[in-house]
Amino acid sequence: MTDGPISRRALLAGAAGALGAQALERAGLPVPQDPTKVPGTPVSPLGQRSPFERPRRVPVGTGQGISLTPLQNLSGIVTPADLHFERHHAGVPAIDPQRYKLLIHGMVERPTMFDLEALKRFPSVSRLCFLECSGNGFPSYRDIRPDLTPQLVDGLTSTSEWTGVLLSTLFRDVGVKPGARWFLAEGEDAAVMARSIPLEKASDDAMIAYGQNGEALRPEQGYPARLLVPGWEGNANVKWIRRIEIADRPFMTREETSKYSDPLPDCTARLFSFAMDAKSVITFPAYPVTLPDKGWWEIEGLAWSGRGRVRRVDVSTDAGRHWAPAELQQPVLPKCHTRFRYLWTWDGGDTTLLSRAADETGYVQPTLDELRQARGRGTTYHFNHIRAWTVRRDGTVVFGLEG
Amino acid sequence: MTDGPISRRALLAGAAGALGAQALERAGLPVPQDPTKVPGTPVSPLGQRSPFERPRRVPVGTGQGISLTPLQNLSGIVTPADLHFERHHAGVPAIDPQRYKLLIHGMVERPTMFDLEALKRFPSVSRLCFLECSGNGFPSYRDIRPDLTPQLVDGLTSTSEWTGVLLSTLFRDVGVKPGARWFLAEGEDAAVMARSIPLEKASDDAMIAYGQNGEALRPEQGYPARLLVPGWEGNANVKWIRRIEIADRPFMTREETSKYSDPLPDCTARLFSFAMDAKSVITFPAYPVTLPDKGWWEIEGLAWSGRGRVRRVDVSTDAGRHWAPAELQQPVLPKCHTRFRYLWTWDGGDTTLLSRAADETGYVQPTLDELRQARGRGTTYHFNHIRAWTVRRDGTVVFGLEG
Repeated sequence: MTDGPISRRALLAGAAGALGAQALERAGLPVPQDPTKVPGTPVSPLGQRSPFERPRRVPVGTGQGISLTPLQNLSGIVTPADLHFERHHAGVPAIDPQRYKLLIHGMVERPTMFDLEALKRFPSVSRLCFLECSGNGFPSYRDIRPDLTPQLVDGLTSTSEWTGVLLSTLFRDVGVKPGARWFLAEGEDAAVMARSIPLEKASDDAMIAYGQNGEALRPEQGYPARLLVPGWEGNANVKWIRRIEIADRPFMTREETSKYSDPLPDCTARLFSFAMDAKSVITFPAYPVTLPDKGWWEIEGLAWSGRGRVRRVDVSTDAGRHWAPAELQQPVLPKCHTRFRYLWTWDGGDTTLLSRAADETGYVQPTLDELRQARGRGTTYHFNHIRAWTVRRDGTVVFGLEG
Repeated sequence: MTDGPISRRALLAGAAGALGAQALERAGLPVPQDPTKVPGTPVSPLGQRSPFERPRRVPVGTGQGISLTPLQNLSGIVTPADLHFERHHAGVPAIDPQRYKLLIHGMVERPTMFDLEALKRFPSVSRLCFLECSGNGFPSYRDIRPDLTPQLVDGLTSTSEWTGVLLSTLFRDVGVKPGARWFLAEGEDAAVMARSIPLEKASDDAMIAYGQNGEALRPEQGYPARLLVPGWEGNANVKWIRRIEIADRPFMTREETSKYSDPLPDCTARLFSFAMDAKSVITFPAYPVTLPDKGWWEIEGLAWSGRGRVRRVDVSTDAGRHWAPAELQQPVLPKCHTRFRYLWTWDGGDTTLLSRAADETGYVQPTLDELRQARGRGTTYHFNHIRAWTVRRDGTVVFGLEG
């Protein structure tokens, strides 16, 4: 990986002589032989990525309204806004922020319609937290194949710094009536996405978010405003929110009857399974990486819990026989991606890498067998079992447990 | 700001009837009368901002290699990568990451040339921290005008999550010889930007960064790799780094003799004034905002210190007669932007707003007079004195102390 010890003379001779003209035109960009000998490009109002870097979301299927974050290309915990995963049921609506209104009504003293300026005038809060689609990890549970990348396995999760007004602030403003227990959150997209949320979440950390990573929400993230219910499944974080109705019971919308309930083996179902349980995924090494040689490699990945902070992540490099704690990138924030790192010496043999997260509630990420026993093979959401990556002696890495 | 209490019937009638056709074509985008009645746009590999949002860096002068972050448009602490301020001395070089090399030589046991893969193979770290140009705030010290925005006053600071390899890791790899005290960091731009850095910074938190906000560095931030010396003036964070030479003394490059030293009134100069002292700036309300009415307003701003955590920010709404502590957005991270918020009741009269940061070392942001007495009127860098915004009774806000 390194050229090894060399003299400065050898470096300068190499830099001046060894590069062919072809190398100077990679990525369609003319690259000077020596960048110190030509003026660079001037400042710009808006930066662009290097033409050598092309991270991309990957759409799933056709017309399904799903695109996945390239987890294997990312470092740290922040997801760039243009790479945040997408999930929408009828496309991204175009909304003029000057016409935007949010109505709060139902069991309130003062039904009120807020425009965007009104929402922004209230005291604001910001927090880094993850969003995850409740269906994230579907292929790892119901469609296991060796050629899955971290993006294809778990790309329906991203982390942003969200800014907005706490729902508790707005609810104090409109005056919630005694006996209220739930509220409906309704979106202004063509699906009129609607979910019922327990009122306690509004007293806790729910907010109407209008900021993402320092700027306005991106259109596919609910521009100009969305509900944010930190730690809860993505679909409950209703985007393009236009209406909140407060009531004494849940509304049983189609999104919580035909969808977003979890059928169980005993023919009952888990309803309102909002919280995303603790989970982790190794993002390096992973398919389609090939390790060029044995020796030290840093295993990296992400862990998160919808119930609070990740307390620890254990890594196994021998298919689960032994486990050792990974290092957690500080600060570990509640309901936020946490990057973990583990320095591993690969002996060059076949092996399987696993990661297992535990959160501050004491919950430990289950095995695939444990989750299947509890939920059945036909469940459609909340696939937070332990993921496996198999490293073969030729250095290739594939998804799942082999052999 | 709000429409006030209304009935749901009034809302629906208003939404359906009151909007003219012109309103539907703002920003050149056809906006549907009712977004719930037309399918939205499909998923995309890379997101775009809403056409209604156009945050922009502002270039300073012509050909000076300076552009400023729009602080007044931002929320939270993360700066989107394409809005990170720019400062370069000879433009942004185009560098092919496959040809990139970093040489570490001088007083080392094993002079070594690292390619990008080699740098990325080492154990990595990520941290959120600010970068600030040492000349940030120049207009607030030497060119005070009422029509300065937060971007024009202090837009040479931004915060990112940086990822890379600690310099201490690389220096262990090459073996630093006894007696070494400084190292030279040299860039591959046409200015061949070069600074001398004390070796202690390498044992502390200096890193070679290749990641910014989850993705590769942006070209104007040093792609594919830069030196990051957290908390130290921007120019010492040498971009496009190609060479590190370890020595027993500083190199006295032109960037630390003709520039980046601070002349003092007694005809001596502060040399190697690396650390950015504690500072704060109110970003709302600020020019060119006009407050439409008296009453509650949330004052917001950013504070930071190159020496550690911000411990407190005090705000005065009466030109410095009284001060009260602002709320600090959690978590407060060392050497990182910290957003502060202060709920203020404006009585409708003329007044001046001030903010004053203190850091965990006990250092308190000085007044303009104090800084001028210590450094003289002709100094060119490190303008961290208290900023003032004057609110006039007509609601307009201007930079500086009036009356």
